[in-house]
Amino acid sequence: MSAPVRIAIDAMGGDHGPDTILAGVEIARVRHPDAQFVLFGDEPRITAILGRYPGLAAAARIVHTEVVVGMDDKPSQALRRGRYRSSMWRAIDAVKVHEADAAVSAGNTGALMAMAKVNLRTMPGIGRPAIAAIWPTLRGESIVLDVGASIGATAQSLIEMAIMGSAMARTILDIEHPTVGLLNVGVEEIKGVEEVKEAGRILREEGVPDVHYHGFVEGNDIGAGTVDVVVTEGFSGNIALKTAEGTAKQLASYLRAAMGRSWRARIGYLLARDAFSVLREKMDPRRSNGGVFLGLNGVVIKSHGGTDAEGFAAAVDLGYDMVRHHLLQRIENSIVSRPAAAAHGVEPAEAEGQS
Amino acid sequence: MSAPVRIAIDAMGGDHGPDTILAGVEIARVRHPDAQFVLFGDEPRITAILGRYPGLAAAARIVHTEVVVGMDDKPSQALRRGRYRSSMWRAIDAVKVHEADAAVSAGNTGALMAMAKVNLRTMPGIGRPAIAAIWPTLRGESIVLDVGASIGATAQSLIEMAIMGSAMARTILDIEHPTVGLLNVGVEEIKGVEEVKEAGRILREEGVPDVHYHGFVEGNDIGAGTVDVVVTEGFSGNIALKTAEGTAKQLASYLRAAMGRSWRARIGYLLARDAFSVLREKMDPRRSNGGVFLGLNGVVIKSHGGTDAEGFAAAVDLGYDMVRHHLLQRIENSIVSRPAAAAHGVEPAEAEGQS
Repeated sequence: MSAPVRIAIDAMGGDHGPDTILAGVEIARVRHPDAQFVLFGDEPRITAILGRYPGLAAAARIVHTEVVVGMDDKPSQALRRGRYRSSMWRAIDAVKVHEADAAVSAGNTGALMAMAKVNLRTMPGIGRPAIAAIWPTLRGESIVLDVGASIGATAQSLIEMAIMGSAMARTILDIEHPTVGLLNVGVEEIKGVEEVKEAGRILREEGVPDVHYHGFVEGNDIGAGTVDVVVTEGFSGNIALKTAEGTAKQLASYLRAAMGRSWRARIGYLLARDAFSVLREKMDPRRSNGGVFLGLNGVVIKSHGGTDAEGFAAAVDLGYDMVRHHLLQRIENSIVSRPAAAAHGVEPAEAEGQS
Repeated sequence: MSAPVRIAIDAMGGDHGPDTILAGVEIARVRHPDAQFVLFGDEPRITAILGRYPGLAAAARIVHTEVVVGMDDKPSQALRRGRYRSSMWRAIDAVKVHEADAAVSAGNTGALMAMAKVNLRTMPGIGRPAIAAIWPTLRGESIVLDVGASIGATAQSLIEMAIMGSAMARTILDIEHPTVGLLNVGVEEIKGVEEVKEAGRILREEGVPDVHYHGFVEGNDIGAGTVDVVVTEGFSGNIALKTAEGTAKQLASYLRAAMGRSWRARIGYLLARDAFSVLREKMDPRRSNGGVFLGLNGVVIKSHGGTDAEGFAAAVDLGYDMVRHHLLQRIENSIVSRPAAAAHGVEPAEAEGQS
């Protein structure tokens, strides 16, 4: 039997507080009987909530923390106020000191990334971390990164993302040879994105171990599932992710309005309600909740701040799977097996400078 | 009575050729009895097709051209082969020499933009042109720019886009005081997008005539209709647009699959079919077909290359409306009434360098 998976939980993060977080952890616990939890936050509150979940109480220990990182705190503020003593910092720190294998937080993304970078630091051979999202597509699921860790990316960063995204696809999508596309615009430009072109040239001509390069893809290819891993810098990745969320909401709202506009439509809706519930499940943003921080010496998962217990459970599942299927080891192997890494400008100094 | 609106049509552009283009022009002609058309392309083919549309034949004249710009030609190739003699160049040139008020093409975007820039040049006070799209939202329609004219944008370019987008909203959305948002990522960054921040600062603190600045918006705000005009640089704008298209296709496909999966669902679908047809119409990408080239000394509309006659007609409508409601004049007025324009670095030389 393999060792238990130990997950550190920032019980104070998110819009809805520890009730929602712990309800989510309980859902995930039932799915993973070999998981153990360390819950960081206000001990009296957590103890009171755990009264409702005896199963979770038995699989968890509580570490009391006084400071809560606010959802609107700037990263610098969060570090100043929350370093060493906030629930967020301590959850990350548990991974650092090997008391946990992964940390999950629904707290604010900028603060979480800043703390994770400062405390865990980037992996050897990785210039800077990225946030990866799981994106439901017509063909299943794809991984899209970076969805907001940093703005702008050099060719080298894009290639590192291709490596990390491929490792993640092998880890959780169970695809042996995931295909990778670089997000680009179809429009022929006089001035193109030099970094994207250069990354494409390296991936195509020189090749990178464990990366199966497909070529450039466009925004509509993401939902179509053209490739398993879509690589882009964080500004456009974040905008793509949120635009898709907005479009899905918009169409769901059109659908609701259409189905309520006549008696015939309402009866039709009732008859087809099983079909609609399948559709609702497909479109459920909670299913793919959880951004994975890639490129750090540890697994950190960011849950959507506004999600409910079911959504938070999905983020915990994601952390569990990353550990169980050895995400970090896989990334490390791909990086190490990359002979030309140094030649493309991975400077240790640069990597340090990010932290 | 006002003067007729004269529209130059690149009859050879697009994936489906002159049959589709001219069928689209005919649809638009019926809607605009005061429109006149100049059709550029292969005269014998056009003449044969016009045999089917006597009404259009009466409202149009044909100008024979030999060269067709290919859908995959690079802008430089297109200019080399097609300058002075392609249907695309000639349609734009008709606007330049005041034989037409607007040009509409379903040809390739890069070539069309390159030719339009070279031939029409940018307006005084505008550094470089942008492509604006009309985006259906939960609150109606918004304008999003730039969706692919150029990659990257200075604070100055973003402000020019805010001015041009506002003028376009007043022209075709009939909103007196359109609100403007700058597309950004919600994540607090150590390194942000300096250009976007600086543009936001200028719009907020100094103010720009005719621009009602709302603040930063995120990807999901586009579909929500939070603002009337969304401003961003062309890479992220193009990715947002295509990602939304892809998401809409994906959800339509889920919906079709769901409605076909059981007899109850199929009967429900039949009962609700009026509702579904309303929904289909709302989601119809042809309704908002047509990218508007802003910032040039003339109106140029880019139709989606793969659209059908109905979609091309929407692009022609757009050109018609731009002329009828004086888009260029409105942009010019806003630019002229901007006292501090020069202070923010509009260099005539830089503007020239773009063409």
